[in-house]
Amino acid sequence: MRMVDIIEKKRDGGTLLEEEIRFWIKGYTEGSIPDYQSSAMAMAILFRGMDKNEIAILTDAMEHSGETIDLSCIKGVKVDKHSTGGVGDKTSLALGPLVAACGAKLAKMSGRGLGHTGGTLDKMESIPGIRIARTEDEFINQVNDIGIAIIGQTQDIVPADKKLYALRDVTGTVESIPLIAASIMSKKLASGSDTILLDVKFGSGAFMKTQEKAKELAETMVEIGDSLGRDTRAILTDMDQPLGLAVGNALEVKEAIDTLNGYGPKDFVELVRNAGGIMLVQAGIASDIEDGMSKIDRAIEDRSGLAKLRALVEAQGGDPTYIDDPSKFPVASNIIPVYSKDEGYIRRIDSLSIGLSAMRLGAGRATMEDIIDMSSGIVLNKKVGDFVRKGDLIAYAHTNKKEIGGIICDIENSFELSTEIVKVSPIVHEIVQK
Amino acid sequence: MRMVDIIEKKRDGGTLLEEEIRFWIKGYTEGSIPDYQSSAMAMAILFRGMDKNEIAILTDAMEHSGETIDLSCIKGVKVDKHSTGGVGDKTSLALGPLVAACGAKLAKMSGRGLGHTGGTLDKMESIPGIRIARTEDEFINQVNDIGIAIIGQTQDIVPADKKLYALRDVTGTVESIPLIAASIMSKKLASGSDTILLDVKFGSGAFMKTQEKAKELAETMVEIGDSLGRDTRAILTDMDQPLGLAVGNALEVKEAIDTLNGYGPKDFVELVRNAGGIMLVQAGIASDIEDGMSKIDRAIEDRSGLAKLRALVEAQGGDPTYIDDPSKFPVASNIIPVYSKDEGYIRRIDSLSIGLSAMRLGAGRATMEDIIDMSSGIVLNKKVGDFVRKGDLIAYAHTNKKEIGGIICDIENSFELSTEIVKVSPIVHEIVQK
Repeated sequence: MRMVDIIEKKRDGGTLLEEEIRFWIKGYTEGSIPDYQSSAMAMAILFRGMDKNEIAILTDAMEHSGETIDLSCIKGVKVDKHSTGGVGDKTSLALGPLVAACGAKLAKMSGRGLGHTGGTLDKMESIPGIRIARTEDEFINQVNDIGIAIIGQTQDIVPADKKLYALRDVTGTVESIPLIAASIMSKKLASGSDTILLDVKFGSGAFMKTQEKAKELAETMVEIGDSLGRDTRAILTDMDQPLGLAVGNALEVKEAIDTLNGYGPKDFVELVRNAGGIMLVQAGIASDIEDGMSKIDRAIEDRSGLAKLRALVEAQGGDPTYIDDPSKFPVASNIIPVYSKDEGYIRRIDSLSIGLSAMRLGAGRATMEDIIDMSSGIVLNKKVGDFVRKGDLIAYAHTNKKEIGGIICDIENSFELSTEIVKVSPIVHEIVQK
Repeated sequence: MRMVDIIEKKRDGGTLLEEEIRFWIKGYTEGSIPDYQSSAMAMAILFRGMDKNEIAILTDAMEHSGETIDLSCIKGVKVDKHSTGGVGDKTSLALGPLVAACGAKLAKMSGRGLGHTGGTLDKMESIPGIRIARTEDEFINQVNDIGIAIIGQTQDIVPADKKLYALRDVTGTVESIPLIAASIMSKKLASGSDTILLDVKFGSGAFMKTQEKAKELAETMVEIGDSLGRDTRAILTDMDQPLGLAVGNALEVKEAIDTLNGYGPKDFVELVRNAGGIMLVQAGIASDIEDGMSKIDRAIEDRSGLAKLRALVEAQGGDPTYIDDPSKFPVASNIIPVYSKDEGYIRRIDSLSIGLSAMRLGAGRATMEDIIDMSSGIVLNKKVGDFVRKGDLIAYAHTNKKEIGGIICDIENSFELSTEIVKVSPIVHEIVQK
């Protein structure tokens, strides 16, 4: 078998055989197939697509390119969730403890942020002492003990995806639904949980720009997951404004704590309740989503979710008193108010622009080598649907930088106003399941 | 400027700016842009195409990626020709001496064969002593002295094309008209002649499978050449059977000598007369193609073309007595007759199959490391339009191999028969010029 023939077959619109896909992924992982053939292949897939069966095989080949985690010795249903990445997305930090408090087992491997989107691991590291690198045994024992662990991906799982993702990032081949779906699902499947909930975001700050594209990706992933024996469901959520109010690492952790204390921003609470409701159904703990949502409500009211976050932090070496008293988190030296330039109803808050501005304030990485300033970011004071007058306070920029150039102006311009009343749509637009 | 942004622009159907194309080719030649980005770029170009202006810039950037040859100190019009590669294509060896005998200057850099197509340099090397590696000075002096030189490409011209062509070959990105056109034309332009005649072949044994595709490629190259200041014309020729009768290195040289002696096969003579007629018009030596063709006829009749081939061989160190007495060429130890399996009019002789069979008999290379057996190949006894009875002799296979497996059967099967009379179309289907 020659890789060039496989590339040409896909280039010409053919359907790849199982052995051809496995030959590629195995050879690429081992190094016998070079980067330049894999990038040409990825570009051919981007143009020609893959059918459901090809994507399932690709996912399976990538999943088994390295070690897979065996969670079978954990009692109960192991649930997992994945977000395609948004701005202000601190969901795992509130949702994880809540579903664990309700009895589901969350054994989650998470990622770091890059560009305008944040990563759960970076946010967790704003808590002093916390460790996200754990062995497989530590990971399993912690979930068995307290029902939850959120750690970094171990080096040995899905090496094919690590290599291919880095290659796609520099060859213009990221935006391919089959490749995105296989990348996400191979990681989720390799990390071993029984159920998967996918939060597929769409809008300016998201990877998928339209709801149609988000739905296509969601349906593709649900089908792969189901065909490979996991209960997989997806929600399509709106990124036409940042999620919640806080964007930036420590700021978002504080917002997650607020939420577990019952004071979360409306849209974020709505997302956590919906996602939690579905995950509890998947875990067999709730009879339907309504039942699941009321269990989530209870875990907020009785603070059992908050207690679970505290246990998570403590188990992973972090200082739990930060959860009890979030005022302990360091605060940025400059907190600059941002005012509305005009009058009207807020129609949209450009998530991409807010995400990039937060990054430039110090909250994110432009490259993997950059160091994050945990205290910086943006806190919104207004959200879509709100009416503002010229000069009203719409946000705060938190930073330790002295020179911030045009960032304040960019934040102002992220708010799009309308003269007419703006109807706020529910954050979860659609649920995708078999 | 970042290469990934340029790839994405082309991927999304954009038109590249001059500085973007030059950034790519310069970076790739120097090594700052890696293979894996260039292969993704090539695949994006394959799917999205390039407009005439982009192709002209790409060609110019590739031409100037290394040294270019300055032929200005050669008196007279320097003509050049290029064939996209066929089976039995010994055209340069007859056509070159003929146009030189008529007063045009042919300073030609040629290539080697790979796969089912032969290369002029390999064919020349069947003449003992001949040298195809020459310095630029030797090359220019020889053309000034005798009006003709055919040598290998020097190492220093079009390094971008050498690198990109090798990459395209293993990444499924050969079949892109903009990339083919830029590859051919950058080499032709860098080698410095004033006029270029392109012989674009189509049919089963050719690179372009249909006349439409061949025309598209021809028009693209003519436009590039003209826009960069060279008189460029193209002929579209049929490869629905091998050219002439002989396929294989020494066998083809002997056929070229026969042709210069006035005994060439009909289709090959027709091609040489047409191409020669056009080249003499381009050189300003003939008033029109008819006039040019009659000058070519005269150079065959008076053997001045043959004398020029002899001078060429001698100037490049070869033994000219092989031209005087072609029976000196070594003959294969096995000459196996091939008989028709059926009765009918020959409709088609599959050039690809004949080319591959000749290669397997020893006449060609499957990889660049293979050594060619100069005496082996195939000599056809019948051509398209001929009527054959079952058992009639249709070809001879020449080989020094003892075991030739199913090759004879493959040669038999290359002949497609029809019960109806087959009209033979002229070999030159169309002339493309501005």
